[in-house]
Amino acid sequence: MLHVAYDGTKYHGYQIQDGPDTIEGELLKALTSLTSESGIELIGGSRTDAGVHALDNVCVFDTEASIPPEKYIFALNQRLPEDIRITESCEVDPAFHPRHCDSVKTYEYHIHTGKVPNPLKSRYSYYTYYSTNIQAMRDAAAYIVGEHDFSAFCAAGAQVDSKIRTIYSCDIIINPTSDDIPKANSESSSDDITGTDSRPETDIIIRISGNGFLYNMVRIIAGTLLEVGRGHIASEDVKDIIASMDRTKAGPTAPALGLVLKKYDFV
Amino acid sequence: MLHVAYDGTKYHGYQIQDGPDTIEGELLKALTSLTSESGIELIGGSRTDAGVHALDNVCVFDTEASIPPEKYIFALNQRLPEDIRITESCEVDPAFHPRHCDSVKTYEYHIHTGKVPNPLKSRYSYYTYYSTNIQAMRDAAAYIVGEHDFSAFCAAGAQVDSKIRTIYSCDIIINPTSDDIPKANSESSSDDITGTDSRPETDIIIRISGNGFLYNMVRIIAGTLLEVGRGHIASEDVKDIIASMDRTKAGPTAPALGLVLKKYDFV
Repeated sequence: MLHVAYDGTKYHGYQIQDGPDTIEGELLKALTSLTSESGIELIGGSRTDAGVHALDNVCVFDTEASIPPEKYIFALNQRLPEDIRITESCEVDPAFHPRHCDSVKTYEYHIHTGKVPNPLKSRYSYYTYYSTNIQAMRDAAAYIVGEHDFSAFCAAGAQVDSKIRTIYSCDIIINPTSDDIPKANSESSSDDITGTDSRPETDIIIRISGNGFLYNMVRIIAGTLLEVGRGHIASEDVKDIIASMDRTKAGPTAPALGLVLKKYDFV
Repeated sequence: MLHVAYDGTKYHGYQIQDGPDTIEGELLKALTSLTSESGIELIGGSRTDAGVHALDNVCVFDTEASIPPEKYIFALNQRLPEDIRITESCEVDPAFHPRHCDSVKTYEYHIHTGKVPNPLKSRYSYYTYYSTNIQAMRDAAAYIVGEHDFSAFCAAGAQVDSKIRTIYSCDIIINPTSDDIPKANSESSSDDITGTDSRPETDIIIRISGNGFLYNMVRIIAGTLLEVGRGHIASEDVKDIIASMDRTKAGPTAPALGLVLKKYDFV
């Protein structure tokens, strides 16, 4: 089993496709080059969407190669683009299938707010101009936790038998940007007439752990919690939105770039 | 005066050149489009190198345009690439020259260590495999603070009258990556035989404030402090390296991508 981290910006998602670059495609090229075996089949953990990042996705494959399991990390990293890194490798039972095992997946959705988007964050964090009521988001997030039918938070057209999933936690974490550099007497005290918006830049992370997630589920939860934070949806309405099982009642799907698969644990 | 933030990855530095994209070149294009004035001359604060980032660089220009000063933020951001953002704009005295004023510049050099580079950090943080003695780096940094001739920390060929600068602070800040997600009983307890390197990923920031910096000075200081952290240079030798005024005694120039101009304050 390989644990894989990647910057998803340039890729058309995890799953291999004819044509565009994918994470699975790059992993297969590197594995084929390393083992000289053709027809390797990868079984992935999470088939992340285009533009979504991961710090800990997983995949397994069968091989006849006599390479010690722990050697795959450096051998594959030499053959992979720099925005994809193997972080761990180990041998697992040949019957092991990551999607047929009980697992806990933890995703984070990153947001930053402020007067202007921060160009050093814009690749990994969704920018919104609007200030956000964090307590309202936390109140709403509490309704998400538990075992529910998440049909209201699943993109249309997803083909799965059951839309019941268990969410173990959904936390809203704030990191006000540490700007502990004392500001000298700058010109702004006398000349600055831009001071209509002096809100500090704020980083908001929605961290959510569960036994499984439907198609676009985390991004729809993030989009809904952002609507709650802006006051467009009341916190307590999230309970009714879940009960409605109606996608149109939930908020919009938040953009892919803010999403990262943080941890993929087997239990 | 404009305050400018940018991701320097794609740019050949701040200063305009014939051919390659530069920050100054993009600013001039946007200003020319906005004001319809030709021949605008920009006077920049810090002429950052290729690949160096900024959260707060500054520049000034003269204009006859009747645009209210605070309107430049949004009007220019509409015309600039997304990796360059105006964060503040204000009117200043026509005689104001950012490089002829007393100022305090604060740079940060970002480093991350661990078994494998983190692809979500590699754009803004220099990766080193080696573990680093933070106390030794802090002891060495203390010698940097104060008024010194920094010839030993200046790239060869720099043409300046005096290489004396005053450093107000040089701090080593550690942010162990917050990984407070409880790890479930993963396969690693039984199968993982990669456990030869279980060091946690660590973020290290060298934050340095001064009244001015020579060419490549922060990157040479960062490269030297990293050599101290690895034990290749003794902390107390940094005092002698400064006194030597000899560039060859200091460490290598650390890569541009880890450097960000964090604050540009006028005093």
